[in-house]
Amino acid sequence: MGGNELTVVEQRYEAVSPADFFYRNRDIAGFSNPVRALYSAVRELVENSLDACEVARTPPDIYITLTEVEKTETGSSIYRIRVEDNGCGVPEEHIPSCFGRVFFGSKYTLKQTRGTFGLGGTMAILYGQITTHKPVRVVSSTDGVNVHAFELMIDIQNNRPIILKKTSTKSRGGWRGTIVEFHLEGEYGRAASRIVEYLRQTAMVNPHANIVFIDPRGRLYLFERATTKVPRPPKEVKPHPHGVDVETMRRMIATTKCDNMLDFIVNHFHRVGKATAKKFLKFAGISPRKNPKKMTPDDIVKLVRAARMFNDFLRPDASCLSPIGAKLLEIGVRKELKLGPDAFLMAHQRKPSAYSGYPFIVEVAIAYGKGVPKREGGFTLYRFANKIPLLYDEASDVSWKVVNKVINWSTYKVTQDMPILIVTHICSTKIPYKTVGKEFVADRPEIEHEIEQAIRYVARHLRLYISRQRRMEREKRRLGVYSKYLPRIARYAAHLAGVPKPPDVEKLLREVARFE
Amino acid sequence: MGGNELTVVEQRYEAVSPADFFYRNRDIAGFSNPVRALYSAVRELVENSLDACEVARTPPDIYITLTEVEKTETGSSIYRIRVEDNGCGVPEEHIPSCFGRVFFGSKYTLKQTRGTFGLGGTMAILYGQITTHKPVRVVSSTDGVNVHAFELMIDIQNNRPIILKKTSTKSRGGWRGTIVEFHLEGEYGRAASRIVEYLRQTAMVNPHANIVFIDPRGRLYLFERATTKVPRPPKEVKPHPHGVDVETMRRMIATTKCDNMLDFIVNHFHRVGKATAKKFLKFAGISPRKNPKKMTPDDIVKLVRAARMFNDFLRPDASCLSPIGAKLLEIGVRKELKLGPDAFLMAHQRKPSAYSGYPFIVEVAIAYGKGVPKREGGFTLYRFANKIPLLYDEASDVSWKVVNKVINWSTYKVTQDMPILIVTHICSTKIPYKTVGKEFVADRPEIEHEIEQAIRYVARHLRLYISRQRRMEREKRRLGVYSKYLPRIARYAAHLAGVPKPPDVEKLLREVARFE
Repeated sequence: MGGNELTVVEQRYEAVSPADFFYRNRDIAGFSNPVRALYSAVRELVENSLDACEVARTPPDIYITLTEVEKTETGSSIYRIRVEDNGCGVPEEHIPSCFGRVFFGSKYTLKQTRGTFGLGGTMAILYGQITTHKPVRVVSSTDGVNVHAFELMIDIQNNRPIILKKTSTKSRGGWRGTIVEFHLEGEYGRAASRIVEYLRQTAMVNPHANIVFIDPRGRLYLFERATTKVPRPPKEVKPHPHGVDVETMRRMIATTKCDNMLDFIVNHFHRVGKATAKKFLKFAGISPRKNPKKMTPDDIVKLVRAARMFNDFLRPDASCLSPIGAKLLEIGVRKELKLGPDAFLMAHQRKPSAYSGYPFIVEVAIAYGKGVPKREGGFTLYRFANKIPLLYDEASDVSWKVVNKVINWSTYKVTQDMPILIVTHICSTKIPYKTVGKEFVADRPEIEHEIEQAIRYVARHLRLYISRQRRMEREKRRLGVYSKYLPRIARYAAHLAGVPKPPDVEKLLREVARFE
Repeated sequence: MGGNELTVVEQRYEAVSPADFFYRNRDIAGFSNPVRALYSAVRELVENSLDACEVARTPPDIYITLTEVEKTETGSSIYRIRVEDNGCGVPEEHIPSCFGRVFFGSKYTLKQTRGTFGLGGTMAILYGQITTHKPVRVVSSTDGVNVHAFELMIDIQNNRPIILKKTSTKSRGGWRGTIVEFHLEGEYGRAASRIVEYLRQTAMVNPHANIVFIDPRGRLYLFERATTKVPRPPKEVKPHPHGVDVETMRRMIATTKCDNMLDFIVNHFHRVGKATAKKFLKFAGISPRKNPKKMTPDDIVKLVRAARMFNDFLRPDASCLSPIGAKLLEIGVRKELKLGPDAFLMAHQRKPSAYSGYPFIVEVAIAYGKGVPKREGGFTLYRFANKIPLLYDEASDVSWKVVNKVINWSTYKVTQDMPILIVTHICSTKIPYKTVGKEFVADRPEIEHEIEQAIRYVARHLRLYISRQRRMEREKRRLGVYSKYLPRIARYAAHLAGVPKPPDVEKLLREVARFE
């Protein structure tokens, strides 16, 4: 077959901007339909607000208002969403890009944050724009003195903000924070339960936050803080040598100011001292005096592989993380579930661990008894990652796998029809989400192991509680028999003996009782 | 609290390129670990090859070679992957961007293709680069005359290809197609079964393809074509008015050459004639003579909403789609499962339907009996979308939901312990994947409905087959009794009557048999 017999096929090649990509594929970012989009919009804005308050070290005060503006003809409506926080604010010069540009933000660091992709807030605004063609209004102050207000639209094809209006004023009463307000199409009727559930669970693991939500029906949901103690804020860390790949190493080497490899290793990596660095470079076969700029691509590959194998690095330090803490987790669960005083509740925090160089901590809680929701066909599972609840696609999550596939619950005297709630929380400088919509966490072996061990720990205590409870029931039945017949026997004996007053059986009953 | 008491918090704001974004978040594109990455790399390249052959209208010949180059110290290895096809090739000027730039490609059209995000191939190459720091080699010819070879690397921070080497030669023997070759880290031992299963299922729904795979152990897997009949290739279509949002409408209006709205509607939308366009514009309250350039943002919003409500548009035409066809689907399943001749197998294609203006067709098949794999705790489900198999995250897929949650199988005399295989195939100009890794399809109500109806249709036939089979078994038992005693009775009667030869019972037996 000669080449000239082939017809050349015309294909259209083109590049799309990131904004355009997510505009075309909004399903993957959680904006697939008016119900889901409304949920995702609330969620992304609330998470940005909580992160901003954490940076500012303020107990969060978050006000969410959702107002129906008009009904569309297809069953959905146009809503105005407004979220206000008292967080750190966004600097004037970054406001347009932060809210009008995809892949721009402050979240691209090694630090525990709720947002991870620098995408969600802008996606919500973008969705609002393509359904209503109205601008977003952003008001922000970083210093409590100057307030900057912007009206923006997104040039989707070029991934660029368009500034329609800009004003600057003085802050009243020293207000600091951010207000975001825009219009979007949604369907609150069907999204309501998820949105409220989302806020409820958010309050559960952020007990220092005040969250106020006024829904389109005018109902007010108030999640009041249980404590004003602000958790230790997470810190940014240097990368751990175990998790560094060739590209990161190349970038670090290209920008370092160090002029020898020993300094380079000591200065740019997490928890590597001079002695360890020397030992490591010897192991990697690279001279400590070598100039980083002279590292060839092959040297870099060699260095990265050696870093993964070298066993004498310290494990990642989890002091950069901000877990909830077993105490606060218990307080949160008890408050939100309105648990009865006799119900079993126990939270547990595992020691820090790491996967691919990222530190993480797993916390779990288990509740059983009055107040715990019963769910057909299994336990109720609340999943959290970096203090945000994950509500969708449960069955693909690592926690679901551990609870439903890994652990044999009969070991713990637990059956599927008991009202049991399991809470899992993973915090890390990088949560391995499997979707841009942050619905579920990948089953990295290290994370799976930690969740399993944590649940087994609390489950063992639950078993003790259940055993004790069952023994108490048996005892109660036993005592029931005594307390039913003993007075009769006493009366009969008194009658036989001709004594007018039967002996006191209460004392006797107390003696046979094994439990209070 | 005065504003001046607040400490201003320093936050680092930055923009990242799309390549950098997916580099940082490769979990979401299916490259989370060496096992999964190897699977994803094979998959993305094979899908690009199949698409390229479809464009060229050639029966695909795809050669995949995976060679172990060296073992790393952490259990994984470095492999060289090479995929060759006889597809349409990539034009010389587009080769660098196609393979060295994220969000660049030929897939951003309304057309049924396997690839959808213009991302997978480049992601595989990017993953190879960050694990081995070696370039990719791409060889391609679009005309069977000139062959262009490139050596490329990706500038990840700037999402830009770097051309290391470029040569042009003449094609030998008129070869047309594309060869992609690069190095990557992987773990074939644990990826092997998935990769082979992926190719096997791909062959099942692409019976016109030859796929040859030589694995790192030197084993050869050959999936030979069952037909040389190339399916009708999918066509690109104009958008359907029901599915157009404000942004798309705005772009169409900005670029149109039409000078009145009537022409605009007729020329730019799918299946809208002059009469319908007039009726629609009247319904929308927009003059047919209005110049599109004079449409205000509010006019555009009005137009989009009217388009969603207007009921007289024709449904999307599915002639642009390329389904497998019930016949070919049966051939594929029978061949790959090596089904016994008595096993039940039935495929069914539904009529075209649409969701949000995108046409789609659902096809299903059901197999029962010898050769069908038995699976603990349920049926085996093969999911396909635009002729590619989906292997991961089954439980989040719409087909899984229909099979396991929606349909009550006892209606069809089917129990979970029977060896049953269900195949579902969705083809559409836009598959609503929920992840960039194309693992599972969202449960859009329209799609769910079609899958349910399709499965119910074949399940009703399965029920007839099972009833018939059970009757036949009863009959067999009944005949067993006859055939056991009748000859004895015949012999006894002959003996009694003094006849030397007993009468022929075979004829009698045939008469009482109700089935062949």
